[in-house]
Amino acid sequence: MGRVVVDVMPKPEILDPQGKAVASALPKLGFEGIASVRQGKRFELEVEGEVTEERLAEVRRAAETLLSNPVIEDFTVRVEA
Amino acid sequence: MGRVVVDVMPKPEILDPQGKAVASALPKLGFEGIASVRQGKRFELEVEGEVTEERLAEVRRAAETLLSNPVIEDFTVRVEA
Repeated sequence: MGRVVVDVMPKPEILDPQGKAVASALPKLGFEGIASVRQGKRFELEVEGEVTEERLAEVRRAAETLLSNPVIEDFTVRVEA
Repeated sequence: MGRVVVDVMPKPEILDPQGKAVASALPKLGFEGIASVRQGKRFELEVEGEVTEERLAEVRRAAETLLSNPVIEDFTVRVEA
């Protein structure tokens, strides 16, 4: 079993209301020095058997079609030790 | 400016309906070989100035109080290059 992590983040040019809400809440709670926050999603996928290049390509297709909305989000796929 | 990433994931013993929904959708869309999926949140924080140990400790406190629910979620904090 291998673990593949897919990170999905709003594209830089897209407004991110969740991140903005967190960023404006931080100073009110006494946390200083954080200039901005972006919020996205993290998926941990347990893959059956070895994480082959073929399997990774399949995860990339899943990330593109099911896990992210490519119009407003970017994703990265990586194998986690 | 430094970037700190906070990953927030449901604790292993906690049910994860979002992850379960993704896991059951994958085979229906033709993606095979993925045994399980967990879904969590990823926060990217832009920190003013250097990422010092003090700043990281503050981010950890923010992760514990604002970004995660420690009853049902675990978080990790790391500096991103």
